[in-house]
Amino acid sequence: MSRLAVVPGSFDPVTLGHLDVIERAARLFDDVHVLVVHNPEKPGGLLSADERVAVIEQAVADAGLPGSITVTQYSSGLLADYCTQVGATALVKGIRSHTDLVYETPMAIVNEHLAGVETVFVLPRPEHAQVSSTLVRQVISLGGDVGPYVPAAVLAAVASR
Amino acid sequence: MSRLAVVPGSFDPVTLGHLDVIERAARLFDDVHVLVVHNPEKPGGLLSADERVAVIEQAVADAGLPGSITVTQYSSGLLADYCTQVGATALVKGIRSHTDLVYETPMAIVNEHLAGVETVFVLPRPEHAQVSSTLVRQVISLGGDVGPYVPAAVLAAVASR
Amino acid sequence: MSRLAVVPGSFDPVTLGHLDVIERAARLFDDVHVLVVHNPEKPGGLLSADERVAVIEQAVADAGLPGSITVTQYSSGLLADYCTQVGATALVKGIRSHTDLVYETPMAIVNEHLAGVETVFVLPRPEHAQVSSTLVRQVISLGGDVGPYVPAAVLAAVASR
Amino acid sequence: MSRLAVVPGSFDPVTLGHLDVIERAARLFDDVHVLVVHNPEKPGGLLSADERVAVIEQAVADAGLPGSITVTQYSSGLLADYCTQVGATALVKGIRSHTDLVYETPMAIVNEHLAGVETVFVLPRPEHAQVSSTLVRQVISLGGDVGPYVPAAVLAAVASR
Amino acid sequence: MSRLAVVPGSFDPVTLGHLDVIERAARLFDDVHVLVVHNPEKPGGLLSADERVAVIEQAVADAGLPGSITVTQYSSGLLADYCTQVGATALVKGIRSHTDLVYETPMAIVNEHLAGVETVFVLPRPEHAQVSSTLVRQVISLGGDVGPYVPAAVLAAVASR
Amino acid sequence: MSRLAVVPGSFDPVTLGHLDVIERAARLFDDVHVLVVHNPEKPGGLLSADERVAVIEQAVADAGLPGSITVTQYSSGLLADYCTQVGATALVKGIRSHTDLVYETPMAIVNEHLAGVETVFVLPRPEHAQVSSTLVRQVISLGGDVGPYVPAAVLAAVASR
Repeated sequence: MSRLAVVPGSFDPVTLGHLDVIERAARLFDDVHVLVVHNPEKPGGLLSADERVAVIEQAVADAGLPGSITVTQYSSGLLADYCTQVGATALVKGIRSHTDLVYETPMAIVNEHLAGVETVFVLPRPEHAQVSSTLVRQVISLGGDVGPYVPAAVLAAVASR
Repeated sequence: MSRLAVVPGSFDPVTLGHLDVIERAARLFDDVHVLVVHNPEKPGGLLSADERVAVIEQAVADAGLPGSITVTQYSSGLLADYCTQVGATALVKGIRSHTDLVYETPMAIVNEHLAGVETVFVLPRPEHAQVSSTLVRQVISLGGDVGPYVPAAVLAAVASR
Repeated sequence: MSRLAVVPGSFDPVTLGHLDVIERAARLFDDVHVLVVHNPEKPGGLLSADERVAVIEQAVADAGLPGSITVTQYSSGLLADYCTQVGATALVKGIRSHTDLVYETPMAIVNEHLAGVETVFVLPRPEHAQVSSTLVRQVISLGGDVGPYVPAAVLAAVASR
Repeated sequence: MSRLAVVPGSFDPVTLGHLDVIERAARLFDDVHVLVVHNPEKPGGLLSADERVAVIEQAVADAGLPGSITVTQYSSGLLADYCTQVGATALVKGIRSHTDLVYETPMAIVNEHLAGVETVFVLPRPEHAQVSSTLVRQVISLGGDVGPYVPAAVLAAVASR
Repeated sequence: MSRLAVVPGSFDPVTLGHLDVIERAARLFDDVHVLVVHNPEKPGGLLSADERVAVIEQAVADAGLPGSITVTQYSSGLLADYCTQVGATALVKGIRSHTDLVYETPMAIVNEHLAGVETVFVLPRPEHAQVSSTLVRQVISLGGDVGPYVPAAVLAAVASR
Repeated sequence: MSRLAVVPGSFDPVTLGHLDVIERAARLFDDVHVLVVHNPEKPGGLLSADERVAVIEQAVADAGLPGSITVTQYSSGLLADYCTQVGATALVKGIRSHTDLVYETPMAIVNEHLAGVETVFVLPRPEHAQVSSTLVRQVISLGGDVGPYVPAAVLAAVASR
């Protein structure tokens, strides 16, 4: 039986911690959809949804991740509806801390109820786990170096702006 | 000696977890005031304060909760002042997680200082504890089913809009 | 309606944090049973069960705590059975941290199931909340001063040995 | 590609929370090994390793769990070595709380290093998540009813002693 | 070797918990810079940056804190850049709870990377640790007494408005 | 003013996380005492106290740690008494998680009361923070490789047995 997993996130921008989660998902499931969830009514942010997709695709290619990985975007409804449409068995989320767990637990319950989809938590490698997209955006906005936290494709996308 | 407890919240909308906390308060204290705390300068939300009061009254009646339960609203000041006005012995709060505890601890200290009122924490039944009003509003806004998380009175109020 | 609450613990020895919890229980409920739970097959410890009861009675008297407080001991079964025997409405527990909450949650579920008793959590005053009986025993065994953490009755009981 | 997951535990006895984790593992992976890890030098406990295996097999059958589930035992070495022997892709663990997460994180790191196996965390349904085997054993030893926390096969095994 | 530590914060207003952290920093390091970090594009708040600096200076003087303490402000960039400019060895932060720790951990990693500065956590005295500037502002805005949570210099500054 | 810090632990054996904490202490304070705390009435363990001291000295030398680092042992009393004897300003502890913080908080309060010593928490680098001495001992006892978690001096000490 072939199983599909969705790795959802805003990925603005994708971090090395996110890439680590994507790699783990690709080892655990036959097909992986990396889903850039965004709200078109709230543009702003660092990268557009299209740029985020392109950057993740580049980073996945650069890292030579195994398995079948598709990068796409979603802005029109419940994550559970997306899971139902593509027949996902699981959502895969990285947890950095217990605060993440407290945040994710209710959403896991709702997504199981609405779509029968299982939420699976993996631990990104500790050296990549801590720095979030939010902190990366703050450091970039103040002119600091984010090289240790993001794949090269993010650095290129930021530099080209 | 007769004791009165206040169960404060924004209750937008009341959930099954909230109802469970109200029921526990009614077993522990002679009189219970369910207090819809709202900010008239920030309307928005799912239900108006009047609607929230009416929905909770209906849900309490439907559930046949024991004891003396009054539902009312408050928008004009410190929760501690309300407690002093009605002579409350205790505030009753449900805790879903340690994050709630971290959030509630400073407010408990302040309310004891300002009004001599004790904050008492109870654990809602695990199957009702996790899904918050915020998540219920999100699911409703995206067209999902919130039947497992809220009393029927909420479903009716939302459907009638 | 008159309500009885049980404050269980090993109280070896009672600390200022425990006394604070007992005082809060006495403000919240008509009758309070402070219950020294001990295992006669594991003697050891700092004080005997009889001594713990006597020390708590002295400390409650010294502090002039309000309300109806009875100190007693229990060694023969489930805490839930004791609650049923005395018709307790609630168990009252102090929580020092989220670790306490994780530990107490399953026991609260079991005690509600077995005896229909509600577990109520209160926050001892921060300056008394942190130092446990275990740490007090360690400091005493190494000759340190525990004056800031326990009532005078404990100091007297330890000195008289 | 076919993937095998190991669900390790002492399962003394298996709880409804454990069964829920086993069911989730069976939805996520093609083959599941439920592994009763025990230490033959420390007998004691409620059930022998053989009894635990038999009880889990009965409970899995009674619940009609889907998929390919094998129940076996292990006492001779590193969990990582077992994973290597059977070619496991993943270890599946339920998490009841953040304390579990703190406990499991270092072991996940070690097992990935030693066996290249991924540790995957799932959330058992809240109503089954809280009561542990340890608490079940305590309640049984004091004569309390554990019916709400364990499958019928455990009740039968305990009654037949 | 002389070492300098920075105690950063928005300090709007400084609390007794903050003062306790400043005092600890002054015992641990030869020179302490209390740094009022503010965003000139988001004025609002309770006190202006200049007022916050003046209030902290007054509170430090009133408390007779030991050591070499300088109060200053910063609004133009990365905290790491300030640390580099003044040659700081350490950032000193108080932690009230594990939630603070989760929040501070990624920033500590980034600041070590960008400026080679160590982040050091201290525990303010429990009786001063819980009430934050945010809660103080809320209580003030609703007319409550914040005397137990802030130094007298804050009360004077608020009264003079 | 010259300041001395104590880094206490059982260090059985020292891990790369411990070494990271020692290095941070050496950057923060003029003199550092690494204190192997042990209980001569409970021998057992992996290494003797003398071996632990020798291994730490070797590891500190191999790593070329900066500053003035003394390794010694202590078995006869309160850690606070040791701090008083050597005139320590601070105790330095690494925290791997919030569970560590809950455990350390009461001891920090007691040590400040008994010896006027400040407890300072630092974060070891994430890739070294998670694996404890206890887990290292378990992996060694079952024949697994602990190379990624401990300095070479530990591997040599274990191999020479």
